[in-house]
Amino acid sequence: MSSPRTPSGTRSRSQTRTQVAVVGAGPAGLMLSHLLARAGIDSVAIDLRTRREIEETHRAGILEQDSVDLLVDTGVSDRVHRDGYRHDGIELAFGGASHRIDFRGLVGASTQLYPQTDVFVDLADARARDGGDVRFGVRDVAVDGLATTPAVRFTDADGADHEVRADFLVGADGSRSLCRRQVPEAARRQYFREYPFAWFGILAEAPPSAPELIYNHSARGFALISQRTESLQRMYFQCDPDEVADAWSDDRIWDELQGRLSANGHVLKEGPIISRTVLPFRSFVQEPMHHGRLVLAGDAAHTVPPTGAKGLNLALADVRVLAEELERAVDADDPARLATYSERALGRVWKAQHFSYWMTTMLHTLPDASPFDVRRQEGELSGLVASTAGSTYLAEAYTGWPGGR
Amino acid sequence: MSSPRTPSGTRSRSQTRTQVAVVGAGPAGLMLSHLLARAGIDSVAIDLRTRREIEETHRAGILEQDSVDLLVDTGVSDRVHRDGYRHDGIELAFGGASHRIDFRGLVGASTQLYPQTDVFVDLADARARDGGDVRFGVRDVAVDGLATTPAVRFTDADGADHEVRADFLVGADGSRSLCRRQVPEAARRQYFREYPFAWFGILAEAPPSAPELIYNHSARGFALISQRTESLQRMYFQCDPDEVADAWSDDRIWDELQGRLSANGHVLKEGPIISRTVLPFRSFVQEPMHHGRLVLAGDAAHTVPPTGAKGLNLALADVRVLAEELERAVDADDPARLATYSERALGRVWKAQHFSYWMTTMLHTLPDASPFDVRRQEGELSGLVASTAGSTYLAEAYTGWPGGR
Repeated sequence: MSSPRTPSGTRSRSQTRTQVAVVGAGPAGLMLSHLLARAGIDSVAIDLRTRREIEETHRAGILEQDSVDLLVDTGVSDRVHRDGYRHDGIELAFGGASHRIDFRGLVGASTQLYPQTDVFVDLADARARDGGDVRFGVRDVAVDGLATTPAVRFTDADGADHEVRADFLVGADGSRSLCRRQVPEAARRQYFREYPFAWFGILAEAPPSAPELIYNHSARGFALISQRTESLQRMYFQCDPDEVADAWSDDRIWDELQGRLSANGHVLKEGPIISRTVLPFRSFVQEPMHHGRLVLAGDAAHTVPPTGAKGLNLALADVRVLAEELERAVDADDPARLATYSERALGRVWKAQHFSYWMTTMLHTLPDASPFDVRRQEGELSGLVASTAGSTYLAEAYTGWPGGR
Repeated sequence: MSSPRTPSGTRSRSQTRTQVAVVGAGPAGLMLSHLLARAGIDSVAIDLRTRREIEETHRAGILEQDSVDLLVDTGVSDRVHRDGYRHDGIELAFGGASHRIDFRGLVGASTQLYPQTDVFVDLADARARDGGDVRFGVRDVAVDGLATTPAVRFTDADGADHEVRADFLVGADGSRSLCRRQVPEAARRQYFREYPFAWFGILAEAPPSAPELIYNHSARGFALISQRTESLQRMYFQCDPDEVADAWSDDRIWDELQGRLSANGHVLKEGPIISRTVLPFRSFVQEPMHHGRLVLAGDAAHTVPPTGAKGLNLALADVRVLAEELERAVDADDPARLATYSERALGRVWKAQHFSYWMTTMLHTLPDASPFDVRRQEGELSGLVASTAGSTYLAEAYTGWPGGR
């Protein structure tokens, strides 16, 4: 279906007016749109990807307690309890043994194994159920009017051109964010950190090797043993950023994983490997998280390395705060609330950046580590698991800081 | 007085037999000698430095609870309570404010401000009082016979030559240890870390600026505000390792310190600066801490950077364990006890190395830090003081880990 054209040959563009335009309909964008709807605020959310493309992207799988509560308490998902797995702790494996960090015993909180793709499906279903305006598979997105009346122009999946005008614009468009780039250089600060390694991630058709996640430190490098379902497992091992995933046979992958895990007494259950990818490792923050009538949320504003599973949780924490502030901003037509949001969100962002950095540097084998660094790292790990306070400090960060702070 | 000479022209050498020969009569060597005497074990301790030289060396000033207890409970010092100052916490100053870490409230322990020179004086007095054999100001020290019957040869302060034969030899001879070098390369591992900065340390004739230590993080670099007495203060600020102490006027030093402290709301009381030195910053460990019938203790086996004040405390923790193991080793003439000592001591050493590294990297301005690193560091500090668990983790390490572990 092609759009009608004007006499001059340019196609007409349908006009929509809404209160909040949301660029990006991943978990952050959809959750925000859902929370705004509950507060009586209209929004339109768009995404370059089709719904199927988003569903097929394998991402994080661990939700903090507050993330679970947000999904359940706001009516997005009851499946998260039914189909997910509650994890009351993790294993820290190093120095020839495995040590459990008992989250429930230490901080009275748990995490939930529930893949990001399922979070997305639940949110997309909830928006459809509630009549939310969400457009997947759009192209040629352009935004402007950030200082006065934001506008988003795009061509929809059927080829029709649209313009959405809104009081506020939210950039929830991921780590390659278009919205982020609309903030002039003079008005933003960008912070980067590269890590000298990556994660080799696999999906394997095998039963779970352990009931909870294993964070495994060994001389051969870090490995993370996660799960997905009773018959599908997610595992990762530290690798060179230039590693070519397809060059690795199943046997070679299992040898590498078993070698790292056996150092600390774990044995993995093997099975056919149905997916293999190399995941880059970086930290990024853009400050502030607002400009004019634009705000950024989730990966658009910040990326964390995957150790510690903060990415999705941080995005959900952003939009929980953002929905509150936007509600006030819309009511009073007051963009100053966006600065308040930015300040509140950034406190947690930098705490999470530190936690992700800490978990990463404590557990990985650093290519330039001296023998002193290696022994000190073992000293840290031994001291941490021997200390109730240290283990609690880790547990409260991992489960998401008490009280959603 | 010159020693008698043999007919061939070489001087005769007086022979002494003891159970434990101790090279180094600083706090570690003297405390060990004291503890051994209490267990009925004879020792001879020697030191290249005169008693006055050791007394005039300004070093650390913060004792852990267990270090205080060791001095008091074994009859070395009752002055430590009377002349020292109990500190129930520290200030962590950063990001424009100062945050107290309440040791007593968090872990029920305190530290004691009591200079290392006073610890030394108390120990030297106690050994003299108890008739301990301690020889200061010796020269030409040589050791051998580590595999069978250790021997120490030296010339005493009066020029007389001596040979002390012993069942066991203890190297408590500091960071430039002679004894450490007696362990063949194939039998030892050495671990080093250099830091890209040093501390500029001063002694100032001024009243205290604060009741407890201030660990001050600022964009201009780290500073530590300590005390000594009611009229003498010890302060440090992070500087380049190549800094020339004498090139700094009093005014320039005070400007630098006040500039760093004022960033977080502190104001220092000034006075004449009577001593200025640049303290190098390094980490070092030699493993194992024994070889044949030789054991190492204190700085001879390990150096920590001064942040967190672990150096002297670690030396006293070493000798507390070493005295126990030597007692059994002497009774059974069993050098295997020295391996047990090494293993027990190294667990604490690496925990302390990590703590010192952590305090150092968390609080200093690192020359190669990216803007990301700086913000992450602030995120760590904010998260730490906001977390009771995190503050407790720091407090238990700073006060010396509960139960002397």
